[in-house]
Amino acid sequence: MKDTPFAELTLFITGPTFIRPQVRQAGLLPEFGHRDTENNLRFKPIMTNLKKLAGVGDDHQVIIFNGSGSTAMEASIRSLVADGETVLNVSVGAFGDLYHKMAVVNGKKAVQLKFEPGRAMDAALLEAAIREHKPAVVTITHNETSTGVTNDIVAACKIIRTSGALALVDGVSIFGGAACPIAESGCAMYSTSTQKSLGLPAGFGIAFVTAEAVDKAGKVANRGHSSDILGQLGRAGKFQTLTTPNCTLANQMFVQLDYIVNEEGIENRFARHEAMRDMVADFVSGLSGYELFAQKGHGSATLTTVRVPKGISVKDLKAVKEVMRAKGYLYDPGYGKLNEQLEKEGKQPIFRIGHMGDITPAMLEKYLADLGSVLPKA
Amino acid sequence: MKDTPFAELTLFITGPTFIRPQVRQAGLLPEFGHRDTENNLRFKPIMTNLKKLAGVGDDHQVIIFNGSGSTAMEASIRSLVADGETVLNVSVGAFGDLYHKMAVVNGKKAVQLKFEPGRAMDAALLEAAIREHKPAVVTITHNETSTGVTNDIVAACKIIRTSGALALVDGVSIFGGAACPIAESGCAMYSTSTQKSLGLPAGFGIAFVTAEAVDKAGKVANRGHSSDILGQLGRAGKFQTLTTPNCTLANQMFVQLDYIVNEEGIENRFARHEAMRDMVADFVSGLSGYELFAQKGHGSATLTTVRVPKGISVKDLKAVKEVMRAKGYLYDPGYGKLNEQLEKEGKQPIFRIGHMGDITPAMLEKYLADLGSVLPKA
Repeated sequence: MKDTPFAELTLFITGPTFIRPQVRQAGLLPEFGHRDTENNLRFKPIMTNLKKLAGVGDDHQVIIFNGSGSTAMEASIRSLVADGETVLNVSVGAFGDLYHKMAVVNGKKAVQLKFEPGRAMDAALLEAAIREHKPAVVTITHNETSTGVTNDIVAACKIIRTSGALALVDGVSIFGGAACPIAESGCAMYSTSTQKSLGLPAGFGIAFVTAEAVDKAGKVANRGHSSDILGQLGRAGKFQTLTTPNCTLANQMFVQLDYIVNEEGIENRFARHEAMRDMVADFVSGLSGYELFAQKGHGSATLTTVRVPKGISVKDLKAVKEVMRAKGYLYDPGYGKLNEQLEKEGKQPIFRIGHMGDITPAMLEKYLADLGSVLPKA
Repeated sequence: MKDTPFAELTLFITGPTFIRPQVRQAGLLPEFGHRDTENNLRFKPIMTNLKKLAGVGDDHQVIIFNGSGSTAMEASIRSLVADGETVLNVSVGAFGDLYHKMAVVNGKKAVQLKFEPGRAMDAALLEAAIREHKPAVVTITHNETSTGVTNDIVAACKIIRTSGALALVDGVSIFGGAACPIAESGCAMYSTSTQKSLGLPAGFGIAFVTAEAVDKAGKVANRGHSSDILGQLGRAGKFQTLTTPNCTLANQMFVQLDYIVNEEGIENRFARHEAMRDMVADFVSGLSGYELFAQKGHGSATLTTVRVPKGISVKDLKAVKEVMRAKGYLYDPGYGKLNEQLEKEGKQPIFRIGHMGDITPAMLEKYLADLGSVLPKA
């Protein structure tokens, strides 16, 4: 192979994330026919292990979409919101806004309940919005990647379900890194992806759907082709994907889920993420003028957002990025649009630290030490 | 890594296809941030080389969709067919039918012009259908994977464009294996994928779009999110994808397109595919009772379909598959639904030989020799 000009950086961004060597190597496993028995040698254990990781049983079916987490989210809108119904999109940041945008651009009647960046969903305001709009469907973000806020989806879904609405949850950046109370929440469809806390390359959207979702989809017209969860389930029931999957990623996912479930252990994996959240919180508390951005008690186990002191700008953070690059890291200077907005409002910008997937506390410790030496002083 | 139970088979199916060792190895190249400068080190040359391979210039823009060829095709329907307009789907097989299905399940007013399996599009019948239905948009399959028939898309698109309609072409299984007269045809959007004649794993849909398509999309409502070519182009203009791409595939695609354009050479690649088509035709002519299935003059350069003699059933072909598996191959016993239909009509089923991507004449020669010794005698 010709030499490539690509840098070998350790990704501390919020996805895609660091791929550990064993997972990269699994990319060398053989390609296969997606309608052949070889397919099921990959996807049957993949789907079984995904259900273990999700803590769901026979009440849930798993769909693997070719695409990304957005593919699964958009499918939930197209399959589960009927024309003329109101969908309420609860947003605590850019990815909550994206769920709303998906509803709008698909011609759905959509309203939004927005919270200030850094704040979590508030139950009383959710109840009020549901009383006002009487939605048939409500979407909510489990873990907002732009702000590092985790919502209490059990509480939110309880309110949503009590109103009689269906709950759809975006769990893109948390699944695989923390307990996701999918069954307990009673959400009809929970969407996630491979390239965040599962520690895999991007390429598949993943969804867990209930019988209630299946029933509802049967009453929704124009669900599209790849966005139709019923068509997808027809294949998923045979441990297949609707269209040709990326064989490399399937092989890597087979290996990685076996590792998570049978080697690292699910509880250990979740505990590791919590420990890393605490490490970053300690790090920030030791940095004069820097503050955690997420509402107290809602800091994500998989990524942390940090508000910088007065006098430090987005431009400074972009300079930090280049210094960190020279040290072999990809640093995350914050979600672009959010920082634009914050600076426009005269507020201080934030940066993010992704500590998801297969990043270890030892790797994070080294990263924080290097970052601490690079961040501008208040 | 634990031992995996996966067989190392050489894929002679019609996609996914054989991945050559250099491409597998390229999967070990580093992951990257999709909004970082590292992204462009991959996708700028990828898009440039795709345009070279497509023989298009500044009149065309390239979109890389996360998903598959179907993702690009469905986007063409959602972005370019307005509600209330008629779309005519020209079908010479299962994937032409799929384009029609995509129009129907997205709520478009769709009519179909179907040809018998094995036959190519007929210009006079296309003209008549256009006169009858007055479609605003017409879709056509360049290379029908289920029947091994290649349509003359220049002739078809000339008729379509003369009528004032937009032409959308599905080039999923041919792009990268034969000359695709995209610019000459004047089609508004040409969709293809990675896992066929490009010799890559699945994971990206690829589209070439014209200014005419961009203009039309601006007048179509409810284009969706990932299916909106305008949203996609906003990112593509920066050499990015709309959502997180599979980094492994991007690295492999960077290496593979450089190989195709600068090492193998585009013309050599196309000539190799034609030579393989001729090799298979010679092989079939030497098999008593077996016949080429595709209409004369329309046999695909990337896959060949073979009608089996009387007395040989689909069940026999499935037995051939298992014998070939034991020899290290994945053999293709024909497109399931088509063979069901053929047997129901009292006709003989077909099998397929994929000779696409990076399969070499030497590999094919060995495969045909092995297959010849296994196929049941007439």
